[in-house]
Amino acid sequence: MKVAGKSTRSIELAADGWAAVIIDQTRLPHDFVLRRLENLAQAAEAIRDMWVRGAPLIGATAAYGMALAMRADPSDENLENAARTLMATRPTAVNLRWAVEDMRARLKPLGPQVRTGAAYARAAEICEEDVATNRAIGEHGLELLRKAWEAGGEQDRVNVLTHCNAGWLATVDWGTALAPIYLAQDAGIPVHVWADETRPRNQGASLTAWELGQHGVPHTVIADNAGGHLMQHGMVDLCIVGTDRTTARGDVCNKIGTYLKALAAHDNGVPFYVGLPGPTIDWSIEDGLVEIPIEERDGREVSEITGLNQVGQIETVRLTPDGSPVANHAFDVTPARLVTGLITERGVCPATTEGLLSLYPERHNSMRGT
Amino acid sequence: MKVAGKSTRSIELAADGWAAVIIDQTRLPHDFVLRRLENLAQAAEAIRDMWVRGAPLIGATAAYGMALAMRADPSDENLENAARTLMATRPTAVNLRWAVEDMRARLKPLGPQVRTGAAYARAAEICEEDVATNRAIGEHGLELLRKAWEAGGEQDRVNVLTHCNAGWLATVDWGTALAPIYLAQDAGIPVHVWADETRPRNQGASLTAWELGQHGVPHTVIADNAGGHLMQHGMVDLCIVGTDRTTARGDVCNKIGTYLKALAAHDNGVPFYVGLPGPTIDWSIEDGLVEIPIEERDGREVSEITGLNQVGQIETVRLTPDGSPVANHAFDVTPARLVTGLITERGVCPATTEGLLSLYPERHNSMRGT
Repeated sequence: MKVAGKSTRSIELAADGWAAVIIDQTRLPHDFVLRRLENLAQAAEAIRDMWVRGAPLIGATAAYGMALAMRADPSDENLENAARTLMATRPTAVNLRWAVEDMRARLKPLGPQVRTGAAYARAAEICEEDVATNRAIGEHGLELLRKAWEAGGEQDRVNVLTHCNAGWLATVDWGTALAPIYLAQDAGIPVHVWADETRPRNQGASLTAWELGQHGVPHTVIADNAGGHLMQHGMVDLCIVGTDRTTARGDVCNKIGTYLKALAAHDNGVPFYVGLPGPTIDWSIEDGLVEIPIEERDGREVSEITGLNQVGQIETVRLTPDGSPVANHAFDVTPARLVTGLITERGVCPATTEGLLSLYPERHNSMRGT
Repeated sequence: MKVAGKSTRSIELAADGWAAVIIDQTRLPHDFVLRRLENLAQAAEAIRDMWVRGAPLIGATAAYGMALAMRADPSDENLENAARTLMATRPTAVNLRWAVEDMRARLKPLGPQVRTGAAYARAAEICEEDVATNRAIGEHGLELLRKAWEAGGEQDRVNVLTHCNAGWLATVDWGTALAPIYLAQDAGIPVHVWADETRPRNQGASLTAWELGQHGVPHTVIADNAGGHLMQHGMVDLCIVGTDRTTARGDVCNKIGTYLKALAAHDNGVPFYVGLPGPTIDWSIEDGLVEIPIEERDGREVSEITGLNQVGQIETVRLTPDGSPVANHAFDVTPARLVTGLITERGVCPATTEGLLSLYPERHNSMRGT
């Protein structure tokens, strides 16, 4: 997508052909800063400290992390070390595990002398696959937006509510939840996005609003508390969110607060869709509420917040009283019963085991108990 | 309740016997600053700029605003002017209207020469009535907390989730939603409060956390997005919130985001209670969604936030990208079907017309269509 009019990806190989270049997303929306990742430690730091975030981009960054590790030391020992190091950065992200295991499985049988080249080739391929996947998600989702527009007599703008950031910044390009929106805009459908702020890390207010604004998509930032009110008053045509992990029966683990929006959508008859690439489906689990461990992050993400002060510096301020304890659960699970449909690269399906298997029949044997 | 060990009210007459002293709540939780209100304009400013907030405290401040206006000029003309000025400060607050109309109705028949004394007497009485009302709400709510504690075999702490601030800072003393919690703590019931941050104005993270902390009540601040997850995992025994306005059938207009928590409580079988004093019931309306106008406030409350910077100064930082539009609906309406019970100064009743009339039978004739 575009940044200041220039097509940009969230991760790209540097001109020197070996370092990976990412956007330091912790500086957005106030500063657009590119960072070079030159070794495994930097790639791990980029994931752990959330310079990059979003399941697909985490996967792509981990793949380049493996390549950078092989460039430094392609031994069996370092292959295992790199996989272990990257896996430990964000325990909830199934896409991270997928990318690291894919890389390890492909590199392990090779001799150390060819591992580096193979690793870079595979990392690039993972990126291209992600772009193609997201574009396909966008095309399937576009049809839902087109129908909503037609249902309104092609008069009113189509209002989409989204939570967190599942846009191109969370992937290599296009995004998952936002890909349909970019394609709708390209297709001349007037779309408007309600962007949930998404406390505590504010990915909606900072990243979603920034990337929509840079690409010229009309949008409005709202507090996380506001979505229910908007839905009660007919101001939301549909919700589209992303997911970090979807279970085999369609339970959706996504940023904390997603569940509350799904409840409001259900209560008001607003369709609630989830955009996801196949690799984020965890076929080994069914019941997301019971089986998905929820990451608890540093309480300072709640007690403090970072923004631009009046003299143009990025500054962190404390919001809570000295001594008040804080809790910070990072994700929640939206039960499949609240999800209208899953938008995948292969099409849209109900959030059920049958629905998912109709699109991914080859995964029948991956499921537990089958 | 206590501040640094000293019993304090949110509004008190100054030692000189004529100025009203309030806490500048916009400085909390970082600074405890008292302000003198010496005239009508200052009282109106205190309400409009939210140095004071919360329906009962707004009513009490408006009552003193009328008294201060009479002290300056007790003419008929100034009586009308004072009423008009105060009414315009916060259009959604029914309690403001009630207090101003009560004062006007009592003062109008009096001669100008006795209006000032009568106004101060009535303002003091309104404050004392509020304290008594809230204590009664607390005693009725205490029984709900006691039952929850007994249901857990008197073993585990009772976890209460609250949204925004309906504590003593929102009233003259005790609070509405928090009065049962203070009384439970006094009664030896181990209570713990999940305090929703309450974006965009963060009344939970700043005011609720501060007043609970000052009084020694265990609490944890959470993002507004977190409550659904906590309820899914059995970590909330009951919710208690306040309300700015309750309709004759029990629809509850309260801080934006309340509806989302009520949906989550309903979905997880968690009781959802609303603490309210009789005067906040608007007997003239039934359907809160259709009939209550929702105040839209300055978008900067969403795009900016204020906290304590690293050198101990209160500073405002911008959170959203330059140029991204923002919307800021201040309240939402929770339909009565999601409310387990209304805790009033006369007892606990179902959120229905019949329930409310069982406690307020004298209001039967106030209802539209009866």
